Amino acid sequence: MSDQPLPDTYVVGVDFGTLSGRALVVRVRDGAELGSAVSEYPHAVVDAALPGSGEKLPPDWALQVPTDYVHVLRTAVPEAVQAAGVDPSSVVGIATDFTACTMVPVRVDGTPLCETAEFVSNKHAYVKLWRHHAAQGQADRINEVAAARGEGWLGRYGGFISSEWEFAKGLQILEEAPEVYAAMDHFVELADWIVWQLCGTYVRNACTAGYKGIYQDGAYPSPDFLAALNPGFRDFVDDKLAHRLGQLGEQAGRLTAQGAAWTGLPEGIAVAVGNVDAHVSAPAAQAVEPGQLVAIMGTSTCHVMSGAVLREVPGMCGVVDGGIVPGLWGYEAGQSGVGDIFGWFVRTGVPPEYHEAAANRGQSVHEYLTDLAAEQAIGQHGIVALDWHSGNRSVLVDHELCGLLVGQTLATKPEDTYRALLEATAYGARVIVDTFAQAGVPVTEFIVAGGLTRNPLLMQIYADVLGMPLSVITSAQGPALGSAIHAAVAAGAYPDIHMAAQVMGGRQVAAYRPIQANVAAYQDLFAEYASLHDHFGRGGSEVMRRLKAIRRKASR
Amino acid sequence: MSDQPLPDTYVVGVDFGTLSGRALVVRVRDGAELGSAVSEYPHAVVDAALPGSGEKLPPDWALQVPTDYVHVLRTAVPEAVQAAGVDPSSVVGIATDFTACTMVPVRVDGTPLCETAEFVSNKHAYVKLWRHHAAQGQADRINEVAAARGEGWLGRYGGFISSEWEFAKGLQILEEAPEVYAAMDHFVELADWIVWQLCGTYVRNACTAGYKGIYQDGAYPSPDFLAALNPGFRDFVDDKLAHRLGQLGEQAGRLTAQGAAWTGLPEGIAVAVGNVDAHVSAPAAQAVEPGQLVAIMGTSTCHVMSGAVLREVPGMCGVVDGGIVPGLWGYEAGQSGVGDIFGWFVRTGVPPEYHEAAANRGQSVHEYLTDLAAEQAIGQHGIVALDWHSGNRSVLVDHELCGLLVGQTLATKPEDTYRALLEATAYGARVIVDTFAQAGVPVTEFIVAGGLTRNPLLMQIYADVLGMPLSVITSAQGPALGSAIHAAVAAGAYPDIHMAAQVMGGRQVAAYRPIQANVAAYQDLFAEYASLHDHFGRGGSEVMRRLKAIRRKASR
Repeated sequence: MSDQPLPDTYVVGVDFGTLSGRALVVRVRDGAELGSAVSEYPHAVVDAALPGSGEKLPPDWALQVPTDYVHVLRTAVPEAVQAAGVDPSSVVGIATDFTACTMVPVRVDGTPLCETAEFVSNKHAYVKLWRHHAAQGQADRINEVAAARGEGWLGRYGGFISSEWEFAKGLQILEEAPEVYAAMDHFVELADWIVWQLCGTYVRNACTAGYKGIYQDGAYPSPDFLAALNPGFRDFVDDKLAHRLGQLGEQAGRLTAQGAAWTGLPEGIAVAVGNVDAHVSAPAAQAVEPGQLVAIMGTSTCHVMSGAVLREVPGMCGVVDGGIVPGLWGYEAGQSGVGDIFGWFVRTGVPPEYHEAAANRGQSVHEYLTDLAAEQAIGQHGIVALDWHSGNRSVLVDHELCGLLVGQTLATKPEDTYRALLEATAYGARVIVDTFAQAGVPVTEFIVAGGLTRNPLLMQIYADVLGMPLSVITSAQGPALGSAIHAAVAAGAYPDIHMAAQVMGGRQVAAYRPIQANVAAYQDLFAEYASLHDHFGRGGSEVMRRLKAIRRKASR
Repeated sequence: MSDQPLPDTYVVGVDFGTLSGRALVVRVRDGAELGSAVSEYPHAVVDAALPGSGEKLPPDWALQVPTDYVHVLRTAVPEAVQAAGVDPSSVVGIATDFTACTMVPVRVDGTPLCETAEFVSNKHAYVKLWRHHAAQGQADRINEVAAARGEGWLGRYGGFISSEWEFAKGLQILEEAPEVYAAMDHFVELADWIVWQLCGTYVRNACTAGYKGIYQDGAYPSPDFLAALNPGFRDFVDDKLAHRLGQLGEQAGRLTAQGAAWTGLPEGIAVAVGNVDAHVSAPAAQAVEPGQLVAIMGTSTCHVMSGAVLREVPGMCGVVDGGIVPGLWGYEAGQSGVGDIFGWFVRTGVPPEYHEAAANRGQSVHEYLTDLAAEQAIGQHGIVALDWHSGNRSVLVDHELCGLLVGQTLATKPEDTYRALLEATAYGARVIVDTFAQAGVPVTEFIVAGGLTRNPLLMQIYADVLGMPLSVITSAQGPALGSAIHAAVAAGAYPDIHMAAQVMGGRQVAAYRPIQANVAAYQDLFAEYASLHDHFGRGGSEVMRRLKAIRRKASR
């Protein structure tokens, strides 16, 4: 029976988000998405009070509970397999992606300290979610000391280490909970911890090690640097952080009996090295060749792009060897507020009659405002906005920046301001694309993924402002599909991520094309944005920083 | 019976506003307000289609119908007398104030051309209301030619003649309806036309002649200047505009039989020289001495102040000899948008749950937002706004300017922005007060009148931002009371406006006192406002002008 086709095989990708995890079952030979399931985290984000003790958390804290992630493995994975209608025994691999930088202190066997009797009531023993922002003081010192010492790695991160990342979070534990610091054997990215749970092996993925762990050119920051932050921090890397690295798409290990019991998948199948939600979307969008930028547009936007050469791009989040696919430099940039800004405006700035009109038309307020805004000629509303309501992540790297609106009059209507905010984020994206080009790593294709791809006006505005076609990811579940692609590579079904992405990923090339008249019209408006951007973001006026300082003083 | 007191006498003040006229009966000996009545104009503001012909009006047109004003005399005046319960025979004088610059072309006997069969269907034959803005092209040329020729009077108006004023409106008639221009014997301020109707005599009041008619140092603009605008305009002053002037508080004439029949008042009583609503409020607020500034705060704010000396104050609306009271220089400044900005925000920028919460508390949305905003510490919202949503009338005199908001974040709530807008108008007022001081005519007392005096938070913010106590007018009907005071002077009951104002006007001195900690906190925020004001208003960035130009182009 040699002409019988081989039976189909499948892989499972699991995307761990901020509030829930999603499992997706994908056919290996063509990337067909056959079934998925979502499981909410029972504890969601812990930002008010610690579970159990009920201890109130300070401002800017954001924790999670590790058992919630195992809950996803136990529920969403078998449900997805069932929904797909495939035989679990034909699943050949599993891979995961996670929010980052999300960290947990663990024992040598991987047990989170928060699951030990000794530390169950210690808030520092829990998972510190990416958006835990209470280590800003530590981050400020990291940046000051690194700049003063001229640490070479600082340039790889646009000159700025975030309070969200591994070193700031680790230093906060040392300084605020030395007993937790002393007790932890490893300080682990959840992207790697979840893989450890599945295959029993701790492998540190190259992506977070580079972007969040300051691993550059084969080394972490030196003991001398760490000691300059705090003498007790000198051995942080060797004692708590460093571990065997794994490249993306590699096999971290094989599914343990425990992992098989949780997921209902066969023991011994391939478990891929961990990954980050944004970066893993690149193969799902077939965006793994140099110059292909994928923008994952949601509440914020993350831009990832591979490059054949290393360039230090001013104000980028980071450049990491093998950060997206092995063998290429992975560049990351970001816009801190995108959908979040639109959502804030709809929530707080739209009058009752608009809500009523939208409801009468069976639309969301977003859809209604978009329809009204779409009727306008470019520039008709007379407004330019700066999209810094959550600060600026790229290229200014300044979280003290804030929103700006210029041009409102007594005739300004909600759809005018809404459109101006849509446009502002497009201008922000163009600044990033222009900066890549100026640094010698030009963007040759702009590919969009994420929830905002559902707004065609927004997509057309981006095409017109960027002056280049927009490709759109095919999958509505980019991260989970990306993980599934990694699983297929780890299982040996494809030789590398490039090949797997070509077959299993998908994008609609040039789904939106720039309209030349619009491109010309937006040139003038972008020039206004750029001028305001530089005035308020590059030292022309420090009013935003001063307003934040006044605000902090007044709020005390 | 020599110790019998004289029987009480009364005066009537009539305030002609944009949509209605209000008559007020006032006791001469103490200014007691005994009765009032309001009468709406049947045609309101004609800005869509001409009555009768139905001809559609172009954008920026705003007309009125003169018979509507007579309707007020026939209804509101007798109703007010009846409401006051006084014997009409004890009324000794009547005075009026009007919006300005509101103009009508008339025959030699005062008949408006729109009431003639020949011109009833010609839109240029109607009253051009103050907010008729369709003569901007004429105003631009007036300013260009005046600047180029170095006309000395230009400095008296802050370097800028408005499209609302007499010369722009007259030139528009010449150029767009030469038949109307040729047919008109006089081009008359309604402030004077209504007095003409009452007493049969045309007297041109010194206030509008100066502020709106460019009458300075005993002369109007020269025939050569006018010919440079348009050869046919050379004799505009002599042919159409110039007429006997009357000082404020003087008697223009005596009530005719016709006027008595309309109003029910005794024939032969004193009719005062006409006046403008803002300027006439000054005596009602007892603000007729040098340095006493009265701010009439409503949709916009008009600031009037008398001064003993002549100074050319940069960016003022005008300085006129006897413009507020005879014998002193009358200074006028203005903020184009104040209550209008708050109203626009409440109408277009406040979400449904705020409207519901306000309704549940039995409050207006303004009141609800004010209560929420009042709980904040100064600077806590982190926002600074520029109050230029209607342009800037003083001190920048630039209607191309527009609104600006800096400092919004995803945490910004509607009450934050609302408070920032309240504060922005206070900063705008402070710029005017500072400019007066720098020009050598310092403000020694800041007195507020108008509808916005009802908002105590706004009043306290003004006191704190200005760093000086706020006095508040006693009357809720300032213009009508001011007119009544003029009537009393014209009737000879008082020797001059100063004496009459002391007795009949009223203000609560230092009703709001600056709180020193607040004054200090607002210094920093005002510095930010001032820096943005100068950057966007004085050439640092021309973005606002460019946005307006882009907008006009896009709207074509």
